Amino acid sequence: MPRLLIVGGDAAGMSAATHVKRACPDVDVVVVERGSYTSYAMCGIPYYVAGEVDEPAQLVAKAPEEFASMGITVHLRTEAVDVDPEGRMVGVIGLDDGEERSEPYDQLLLATGAHPVPQPIPGMAEYGNVVHTLDEGERLRRHLDTVATKQAVVVGAGYIGMEIAESLVRRGIKATLLDRSPQVMRSLDPDMAAHVERALIEFGVDVRLDERMTEIRGTDGVCTEVVTDKGTFEAQAVIMGLGGKPNLELAEKAGCEIGPSGGLVVDPQMRTTVAGVWAAGDCVESVDVVAGLRRNVQLGTHANKQGKIAGYNLAAVLSGNQPSAAFPGVVGTAVTKVCNWQIARTGLLESDALEAGVEYEVVSFEGNARAGYMDDPGRVYVKMMAGRPTGRVLGAQMVGTGNVAKRIDVAATWCHLGVTVQEAQLLDLSYAPPFGGVWDLLQVGARKLVAKLGLQPLL
Amino acid sequence: MPRLLIVGGDAAGMSAATHVKRACPDVDVVVVERGSYTSYAMCGIPYYVAGEVDEPAQLVAKAPEEFASMGITVHLRTEAVDVDPEGRMVGVIGLDDGEERSEPYDQLLLATGAHPVPQPIPGMAEYGNVVHTLDEGERLRRHLDTVATKQAVVVGAGYIGMEIAESLVRRGIKATLLDRSPQVMRSLDPDMAAHVERALIEFGVDVRLDERMTEIRGTDGVCTEVVTDKGTFEAQAVIMGLGGKPNLELAEKAGCEIGPSGGLVVDPQMRTTVAGVWAAGDCVESVDVVAGLRRNVQLGTHANKQGKIAGYNLAAVLSGNQPSAAFPGVVGTAVTKVCNWQIARTGLLESDALEAGVEYEVVSFEGNARAGYMDDPGRVYVKMMAGRPTGRVLGAQMVGTGNVAKRIDVAATWCHLGVTVQEAQLLDLSYAPPFGGVWDLLQVGARKLVAKLGLQPLL
Repeated sequence: MPRLLIVGGDAAGMSAATHVKRACPDVDVVVVERGSYTSYAMCGIPYYVAGEVDEPAQLVAKAPEEFASMGITVHLRTEAVDVDPEGRMVGVIGLDDGEERSEPYDQLLLATGAHPVPQPIPGMAEYGNVVHTLDEGERLRRHLDTVATKQAVVVGAGYIGMEIAESLVRRGIKATLLDRSPQVMRSLDPDMAAHVERALIEFGVDVRLDERMTEIRGTDGVCTEVVTDKGTFEAQAVIMGLGGKPNLELAEKAGCEIGPSGGLVVDPQMRTTVAGVWAAGDCVESVDVVAGLRRNVQLGTHANKQGKIAGYNLAAVLSGNQPSAAFPGVVGTAVTKVCNWQIARTGLLESDALEAGVEYEVVSFEGNARAGYMDDPGRVYVKMMAGRPTGRVLGAQMVGTGNVAKRIDVAATWCHLGVTVQEAQLLDLSYAPPFGGVWDLLQVGARKLVAKLGLQPLL
Repeated sequence: MPRLLIVGGDAAGMSAATHVKRACPDVDVVVVERGSYTSYAMCGIPYYVAGEVDEPAQLVAKAPEEFASMGITVHLRTEAVDVDPEGRMVGVIGLDDGEERSEPYDQLLLATGAHPVPQPIPGMAEYGNVVHTLDEGERLRRHLDTVATKQAVVVGAGYIGMEIAESLVRRGIKATLLDRSPQVMRSLDPDMAAHVERALIEFGVDVRLDERMTEIRGTDGVCTEVVTDKGTFEAQAVIMGLGGKPNLELAEKAGCEIGPSGGLVVDPQMRTTVAGVWAAGDCVESVDVVAGLRRNVQLGTHANKQGKIAGYNLAAVLSGNQPSAAFPGVVGTAVTKVCNWQIARTGLLESDALEAGVEYEVVSFEGNARAGYMDDPGRVYVKMMAGRPTGRVLGAQMVGTGNVAKRIDVAATWCHLGVTVQEAQLLDLSYAPPFGGVWDLLQVGARKLVAKLGLQPLL
């Protein structure tokens, strides 16, 4: 019976496991996961910390028992610590009992994810909370539920940090959001990020940019204050809202190539550079089809899709066939809700285009999320870029109140398929007063870009 | 000075007027409009009738004085009644003073719109309200504001009828919605329309299908009851929520060809079959690029785009150049909000595919509008079709609570560009818990269609 070993039991790993077991019931599918949960919604952790989701179990899409009933073996609290790609064997250790053993494989899938690496400043080890896994989310919530937390400091003003800061304010805790960079959300251009910063401040978050934490102090095992290069803040909790770094210890031991982005190099079939070793999810590099380069993008949506592709190809290979499925790459789509604002982006930022040496034109404007005569029409700021002279849509950013988020998927499709602003402006997109103006905001952007690029306006 | 005469001062006509005047300031642009308003949002009329919009002026995007200040002449309350395409002359009549005169032109644009034609049953002329123009909307609102209306009958369960019925319920009026067909909203398949019917009933609308009004009765000039083939209803107001029929009296006099859809035949440049006569908006036929046939689609979004195309080409022709802009056609995208439900559709219905002899596969399923663990995840019903064996996306319908409407624009783009379900399922679409699941609903549909069509699952 061929054996598939998967390291990592979240989105990418379990998508692959499920697909392989369904396609090839006679493959022995074994998963090792160092945490206590399988297949959980990492993006839901801020809602759990805020108390809007009651139990960690609500964030678990599928529990180990469900996988067991499908015939998939899952070893929780088990860490893969060594690998022999020649002998096709992985050394694992039980985190609770310390027992070591070997897990053989015919094919190995690394779905090891990513994790933040906080800088080693005084007090970090004792008092710094990371909220990347559900175990860590539980630990933070327990802390907030038991220690009288009046003030907290969140470090890192990206998605996770902003969402956690908002969660804290919703719980009635004074939240200071620190970032060493001069803007929140580096996934937006600075002019768009400024709107988000304003939304955070209006919601009651104490935003401090260009500021760096240097020490966390505490007494009796409880944090009391945070020291930065600009001052000192009282805080009964410190949360690191940092982006993750791919977990590559095992991949390095296997000799897999790591790309300049810091993610594992994989081909479109999700094969690493080592025979019999595949990878998917937050630990790999993906092709950015707009920029034409490789990025390490850590998002559940890619992890699920890549896990499915890996699963499809693994099922083929484990049945003696050729892999034929391919991951088509990413365009950099991301959305989030911060306070009462929706934030969406896809494609290149201006800085990306400059860095890649891409000639572009850009427009920025504001409009209504609904018809102007409706109650609360909603304000939306839009920024959109197209290539010069082609008119190809290169990227869009939208932030505002009202319906913004899923509208970015239209621009994402345009970026993915190489649609030009001439085509885009005339597509048959929807209109009704509760949902927008008669010219869709992205088509207004396309029209403005057509004019600015001096293109033949229409087809 | 070359002279452009435009008949009809709403979306299509004024889009063209504005474009031509900006591009060619020395063209004499003259508009005749039989109503009292220019450029108003017809789709906003139900909100005005409901009292959610206070004044008709709020629905007017641009008033005649604003056009005058741009150098565009607008004659309101003036009807074009005759045309001589050889002599390039239109006969008009002032509706207030009854004066007749001739308006010469070098190029003529017919933007005459559409209007419902209620069946000639007893009482219709005295008591039947139509709400297609802003003047008519004002008349209905005046009626509702002055006559003690406790009960009303709305005839026609399409967009307009449903929106008006909802408006009435919001005003505290008992609304009966009649339709002679066995379903509401014939722009949806019956199984999807059934969800909308349920939403109407839950909101308090008295929905009666398969029922036909035969008479409206009244006393002292006020409607008192409505007779149908199944019963009699007390009603102090009767509103015809009917679709429009293109206004083609002038076009017929000019000798323009009318297509089987009942709309004017135009080429992609918006030229009718008569030299010097152009047309745009609700009165024309558009190419449905999915079905490969021509339809008369009456929507402000097309009227604006076609008006712009016509304006662009008219500016070229009036400057001695060749027209070069083209309208790319439609795919049948439409959205609306009915009660607390969002309704969206694009592309073909099953009945369209059957009628056109297109081989297809279809999937129907339900999902959440947001992540399942969020408060009020929102229910969404999805139906999606793809061509067999190509996998080309042919259409999608989504109805539900929560964020549905603008998501259809993604499927509309797929339909427009001929995207296949294999491509669609792997596009980089957005994900965050407040806005959907990790697999976008349309991508879930694409995945299901890939499986059902037995297609090579991935690229």
